[in-house]
Amino acid sequence: MLEKEIRKIKKTILDDYEKDRVIDWREMFTQPDKEVIINVVNKLSRILYPGYYFDRDFRVYDTKTKISLLIEDVVFNLNRQISIALRFDEQYKDASFETITKKAEEITAEFFSRIPMIREYLDTDLDAAFNGDPAAYYKDEIILSYPGFMAITINRLAHELFILKVPLIPRMMTEYAHSITGIDIHPGATIGKYFFIDHGTGIVVGETTTIGEHVKVYQGVTLGALSTRAGQSLKAVKRHPTIEDNVTIYSGASILGGETVIGEGAVIGSNAFITKSVGAGVRVSIKNQELTFKDGKGKVMDEDFKDNEVWIYNI
Amino acid sequence: MLEKEIRKIKKTILDDYEKDRVIDWREMFTQPDKEVIINVVNKLSRILYPGYYFDRDFRVYDTKTKISLLIEDVVFNLNRQISIALRFDEQYKDASFETITKKAEEITAEFFSRIPMIREYLDTDLDAAFNGDPAAYYKDEIILSYPGFMAITINRLAHELFILKVPLIPRMMTEYAHSITGIDIHPGATIGKYFFIDHGTGIVVGETTTIGEHVKVYQGVTLGALSTRAGQSLKAVKRHPTIEDNVTIYSGASILGGETVIGEGAVIGSNAFITKSVGAGVRVSIKNQELTFKDGKGKVMDEDFKDNEVWIYNI
Amino acid sequence: MLEKEIRKIKKTILDDYEKDRVIDWREMFTQPDKEVIINVVNKLSRILYPGYYFDRDFRVYDTKTKISLLIEDVVFNLNRQISIALRFDEQYKDASFETITKKAEEITAEFFSRIPMIREYLDTDLDAAFNGDPAAYYKDEIILSYPGFMAITINRLAHELFILKVPLIPRMMTEYAHSITGIDIHPGATIGKYFFIDHGTGIVVGETTTIGEHVKVYQGVTLGALSTRAGQSLKAVKRHPTIEDNVTIYSGASILGGETVIGEGAVIGSNAFITKSVGAGVRVSIKNQELTFKDGKGKVMDEDFKDNEVWIYNI
Repeated sequence: MLEKEIRKIKKTILDDYEKDRVIDWREMFTQPDKEVIINVVNKLSRILYPGYYFDRDFRVYDTKTKISLLIEDVVFNLNRQISIALRFDEQYKDASFETITKKAEEITAEFFSRIPMIREYLDTDLDAAFNGDPAAYYKDEIILSYPGFMAITINRLAHELFILKVPLIPRMMTEYAHSITGIDIHPGATIGKYFFIDHGTGIVVGETTTIGEHVKVYQGVTLGALSTRAGQSLKAVKRHPTIEDNVTIYSGASILGGETVIGEGAVIGSNAFITKSVGAGVRVSIKNQELTFKDGKGKVMDEDFKDNEVWIYNI
Repeated sequence: MLEKEIRKIKKTILDDYEKDRVIDWREMFTQPDKEVIINVVNKLSRILYPGYYFDRDFRVYDTKTKISLLIEDVVFNLNRQISIALRFDEQYKDASFETITKKAEEITAEFFSRIPMIREYLDTDLDAAFNGDPAAYYKDEIILSYPGFMAITINRLAHELFILKVPLIPRMMTEYAHSITGIDIHPGATIGKYFFIDHGTGIVVGETTTIGEHVKVYQGVTLGALSTRAGQSLKAVKRHPTIEDNVTIYSGASILGGETVIGEGAVIGSNAFITKSVGAGVRVSIKNQELTFKDGKGKVMDEDFKDNEVWIYNI
Repeated sequence: MLEKEIRKIKKTILDDYEKDRVIDWREMFTQPDKEVIINVVNKLSRILYPGYYFDRDFRVYDTKTKISLLIEDVVFNLNRQISIALRFDEQYKDASFETITKKAEEITAEFFSRIPMIREYLDTDLDAAFNGDPAAYYKDEIILSYPGFMAITINRLAHELFILKVPLIPRMMTEYAHSITGIDIHPGATIGKYFFIDHGTGIVVGETTTIGEHVKVYQGVTLGALSTRAGQSLKAVKRHPTIEDNVTIYSGASILGGETVIGEGAVIGSNAFITKSVGAGVRVSIKNQELTFKDGKGKVMDEDFKDNEVWIYNI
């Protein structure tokens, strides 16, 4: 390609950056770095499950030294990203370097002090996955390969940073999980112990959802919001459902609305569309779907298929 | 493992390549390189949003130099891949090296001259995402983490190459986006300004779909084709729907067929299955789903759940 | 951050590892390495399609030498991972190093001897994808970019290791495919020749599913299990359906249960929910979905939309 052509391309693009839109912004180091955040998430996974993610470089060291080095690395990088992200909070927009540094260090220290608590929760999630899935042969299989377990792992990390009011980073973490697993859980969602996601692709869990203990959720489930037609701002409003303990929600079901409560032990069948509260212990299923059967010539057949009430399934 | 065993394995596999199938093909450099295409896409993203994707290696340079180097790199690599891909077009199958080179350079130059236009469209998509989502706190969050925004970014790039009739590469780009985001938009689809995808996992948009401005689409939506039962070739036929301006399509809805037009401002509710045109401003929802409620003992309960018309929701 | 703070963080985390849970386990080299398995899968893809995945490092060599080096590399690494994984089998838990080594080498040799058979199957899948999709312009496009083709490729590899009773690794392979493609096929599923997946996001195929030849499956399909309410162990029980030759299953359909057989040539329409056997040649569709139409003022309109029987669609 001619030099001239390349020079023209460069000029076109560089000129286009002069329009003062958000996408034209070019300063470096003043917002979180996606690549570093992904790296931090992967290293945090290794800290959470020290035997399950290897690091060739550190193999010469003993485990303790290895993990120590890893912790230093993650503390340093996460702390740095947090101080960058804090500037997005109105409160810290023009704060002094010292104020930001101090606040970021406080948050980082607090976050890491919660790691044992996060691991305690994840240990219960591991139990729930193993006990809930006949296709799981070993707990190791779950840690090494289950997307649902990876999603809840990253979510529990991101949720703590969300509670500590860190801008941007929690969502970057959960969208990384979304990209790897197809499971989209907002870092704001509050999720109790023994949470089990099976298969998981297509799951959406909104920001103000509250989920109790021993809850099971299958692929394609939405825990979402109803929208009023008025365009009012819905920020910070409880607009997603509350799921109480021991609830099971089968594939493709949608449960919507901030006032919708699914009571303890309830079971929501596949593809049900729920916008009102369901009492404790109730089992909801869609009525038999009407199906048409035709033979090869297009003639309608008379086949009885009307008793397929199936709200419990499991793979 | 014994040397002998390895030698046997090698022989078995190398012999298997002698069957003259497409999968046995072994020439190098005569078709696009997946890894290079992915690299080009990622670097184009950095050119589109110069402040949002960092490159450690270039940090010592000032922004202008950095972007200039990046542009040179992408121009070189994309141009090279285009000249390889052009051979798949019957017209250029046996063209001279000079013809191919000239054509590839023309396409590359034309593609890059459209970058400002692509950026103008993407700036409107960013607005639409920010205004449409109560869970978005900053525009930066959308650029850095929203899968829907990544999908439309890659699609707008790929669509220009599709229009310029580059074989293979546009689809390789959108399938990369599909793999990262779960959103499957064919590069042939024509999409207007202010396009917003929320959550997005499971969305499928077919090749001949036309979408107007200010359209919102939620997770699990299919804009697809009806198939005649005759096995006729459907290539190049308009077989996917037309969506006019200001339409909203909620999660799980399917809109099918090349003659199906969704009129301006229409709203298609969750899970609706549409195969005929819908007039401007019409709001379509599925009738109340019939649900069965049982108590813990399996006794059917009499619960009124019949008024859950919910075609607007938002997370 | 103060040295003291970091020391405290380290102590907190290292102390937390002393609780003797599965997640506290820290030994290295005693379980499969996720990163190595992913690497093996990617290199096996290059061996299966020697012309389609490039390796910059080897470009100086001729193809034969290149593939030979690649085969040695994969044989070595896969064999090593298999010997690690075998320890998870009760039978080999305490076996001698020699026994494990011998068994792993046997399995590795047997696996590689099946590569030509796997390639023969994949060649038929390529045919099926090309013939079944009007949006496919070249077979190369399918190899280079179709997620469904990637999913079946990895599945056919993993299935052979599953049959050879290798613990953990087959599932790690298919969950890697799941993460890249959104298609979740258990390595235990038995799948005949000419298998075609279109779009694919959200597909779930359970462990004991059996699929015949010339079967087409679209996005969002579940081939799953019904669960008895009793908590009995379902391991090893046939709990997923049997799909006979020439069956087509459109998007979003669910077919559930180990005794459910879909007869030869049957067609299952979009979103159908099937829990009983369907005879050969029968075409099942959901009855017309009842829709409500409202104008801009919320007034219900009288629109006839009742004849949209659409069980065939194709994108």
